[in-house]
Amino acid sequence: MNDMIELHGARTGNCFRVAIALEETGLAYRVVLVDLANGEHQRPEHLALNPAGKVPTIVASLRGGQRLVLSQSNAIQLHLAERAPGRLLPEADPARALALERYLYFVTDVIAPSHSGFSLSRVPASGNGAELLNQRSLDAIYAADHMVGPSGFISGDRFGLADIAALTMLLSVEQKLDWARIPRLQRWLETVRTRPAVIRGFKAFDPS
Amino acid sequence: MNDMIELHGARTGNCFRVAIALEETGLAYRVVLVDLANGEHQRPEHLALNPAGKVPTIVASLRGGQRLVLSQSNAIQLHLAERAPGRLLPEADPARALALERYLYFVTDVIAPSHSGFSLSRVPASGNGAELLNQRSLDAIYAADHMVGPSGFISGDRFGLADIAALTMLLSVEQKLDWARIPRLQRWLETVRTRPAVIRGFKAFDPS
Repeated sequence: MNDMIELHGARTGNCFRVAIALEETGLAYRVVLVDLANGEHQRPEHLALNPAGKVPTIVASLRGGQRLVLSQSNAIQLHLAERAPGRLLPEADPARALALERYLYFVTDVIAPSHSGFSLSRVPASGNGAELLNQRSLDAIYAADHMVGPSGFISGDRFGLADIAALTMLLSVEQKLDWARIPRLQRWLETVRTRPAVIRGFKAFDPS
Repeated sequence: MNDMIELHGARTGNCFRVAIALEETGLAYRVVLVDLANGEHQRPEHLALNPAGKVPTIVASLRGGQRLVLSQSNAIQLHLAERAPGRLLPEADPARALALERYLYFVTDVIAPSHSGFSLSRVPASGNGAELLNQRSLDAIYAADHMVGPSGFISGDRFGLADIAALTMLLSVEQKLDWARIPRLQRWLETVRTRPAVIRGFKAFDPS
């Protein structure tokens, strides 16, 4: 066991968020690709780490040599924020609490309905629920333009968890958004999508 | 300004979770009832604290006298966990990371689809999306029986954020669940629903 964090994942929004968070912290990690199309998430090696058969999962060693196997992308990101103080969340309140507020806004008000909409869209004859939930997610994005602060970031004085959550989400609906309604988020996106750590995070699950 | 935390809220799941979390921490707080039926959440006094017109919101004073106005029930709960070390989340990894994992499981896999289902159920002629999402939430509860540990709690060695999230959710679907499928959660519920802090939290928004 060494200090290298293993990230088991694939090209999904939840995995990209964790990869970008890892890149932003500078913590050492290596990717273990889970080939979803070939059902690798249902094989015994992966189920031993994540019995629900989902991605992402990290395997890390803690001080004292204990092994940590952790799933749930948001739990992983909060754990990384604690391992790398000040890199993903401000260290002191009120900035820390407000960064959590914005992060959880994107998690629960934007990403969650979009995710529920996606799950409905795969059910034949499920009515227009998917469309209604996707619109609700877009409406929550339109209501968030003011969250881009004078720093140019959503999380506070620097790029952080709220920016990562907003970034992967907004890119996934880039063609559906009326950007004229969210000029601050438009300028923000131009800046943050070119961050080296963001670019590396989005490439984390490319075949090598 | 004093050290009393103001909790602006009403009888909703998100508000109950915050009230129970406050009761479990022992932090001093007082409730400011927001009468949703009479539209108080849309009045200027409340919009000044929460421009989205939602509940809960807390108003707290930080060391140094700074004022913190915080919304998003999960951000509030994580903030309270940091103010009262060890009361709502374990203090050290791996127990802390795993408690966050379970907490966020209930937030994103159980509560989020249920909430999306609820929002669809209020849209006439929206198909069976609400029903499908509510079933998805119930399925995630059935998959969580193993999370009740030897301590009798979900969050780890003691009652914490994951237990609070699970509790309000399971009570809201108590009549819909086939409890024979989740015997550990059934025993867990019998214990945790009688905790004095839980009972007080559920009464926090009763008219005085």
